Amino acid sequence: MSTIKYPTGIHMNVSTTIQDRHSRRGMSLESDVNDSNAYYREMDKAVIYKKPTPVQVVKVDYPARNKAKIVEAYYKTPSTTDYNGIYRGKYIDFEAKETKNKVNFPLLMIHDHQIRHLKQVTKHGGIGFFIIRFNAHSKTYLVDSDLLIAEIERTDKSSIPYSWFETNGDLIQEGLFPRLSYLKNVDARYFKEEK
Amino acid sequence: MSTIKYPTGIHMNVSTTIQDRHSRRGMSLESDVNDSNAYYREMDKAVIYKKPTPVQVVKVDYPARNKAKIVEAYYKTPSTTDYNGIYRGKYIDFEAKETKNKVNFPLLMIHDHQIRHLKQVTKHGGIGFFIIRFNAHSKTYLVDSDLLIAEIERTDKSSIPYSWFETNGDLIQEGLFPRLSYLKNVDARYFKEEK
Repeated sequence: MSTIKYPTGIHMNVSTTIQDRHSRRGMSLESDVNDSNAYYREMDKAVIYKKPTPVQVVKVDYPARNKAKIVEAYYKTPSTTDYNGIYRGKYIDFEAKETKNKVNFPLLMIHDHQIRHLKQVTKHGGIGFFIIRFNAHSKTYLVDSDLLIAEIERTDKSSIPYSWFETNGDLIQEGLFPRLSYLKNVDARYFKEEK
Repeated sequence: MSTIKYPTGIHMNVSTTIQDRHSRRGMSLESDVNDSNAYYREMDKAVIYKKPTPVQVVKVDYPARNKAKIVEAYYKTPSTTDYNGIYRGKYIDFEAKETKNKVNFPLLMIHDHQIRHLKQVTKHGGIGFFIIRFNAHSKTYLVDSDLLIAEIERTDKSSIPYSWFETNGDLIQEGLFPRLSYLKNVDARYFKEEK
């Protein structure tokens, strides 16, 4: 039961961690992306956050002083993607999705407002992409948003085959710190000439 | 009771609008900033949104199929500022605050996590600022985040005098479309050499 002493004071139990890697299939992509962003912020590499889920608050009670309790609220549809921030001076914007489907990525997982938003982002000079995990393959890809949106608009099917992602996506390396080193893929795809 | 036909299909009643300008003191800065951002997105000038207020959801009921009702939740402290997005290829990040105080801006209105976040933003090459409205003067200023944070860290007082903002802030022009033309101030301050 040794522990890794992480430079910035985060301690992690090795045996738990190894066990985690075995049960990764059950872990959510969202928590992996959030952990990776926390790591990148801690390392001062990038400032990227998940946006809070928008909630329409209808009724608030004040059972104790200074303590507002929301007692009626509803989830709202977000207008944008889930993640944005800054990396190497550039605006970064992406959406993360995971599927258990072995052969296809179902297109109903990507919403019109996300497509519209990512189109605007790249038009204004930002970097836009999707992070898509295929749980059945234990593989996570970074896919350029313009590329995937073009394919969505080209196809008349309700899904895109896994093989398309193998060809057009950038396989993200998975590990401990960070769980998803997706900024390496961003470097390779969007900062090629500056290397 | 004539109406202005707005190019993209937004209609506005002129008399209501003029009345609004008289009662602007009671309107919130947040709604002015949100309206301005909607205008800028509509005009395809910038893609800037307010982040949703983060809420910790504790209990959800499902009174009807496909309709989740949140019945217990609490407001969480945000980790970042309220607004971010992209303009002219640059990452933009800011916080908006308004005060009724005539002579001072009280520093307890700006939180440590906002200062920390804006420092990170400018360090990584983004544009960071505050939009600060003095309701008693009917004046709204854009203040560079590095400038205001330096002043906050320099002073041993619990507030910064209004006169400091007159000297160091950029007065934002107010109108109908957009309510706050703060991107003009961004142009002047951050894109000078490119004009």
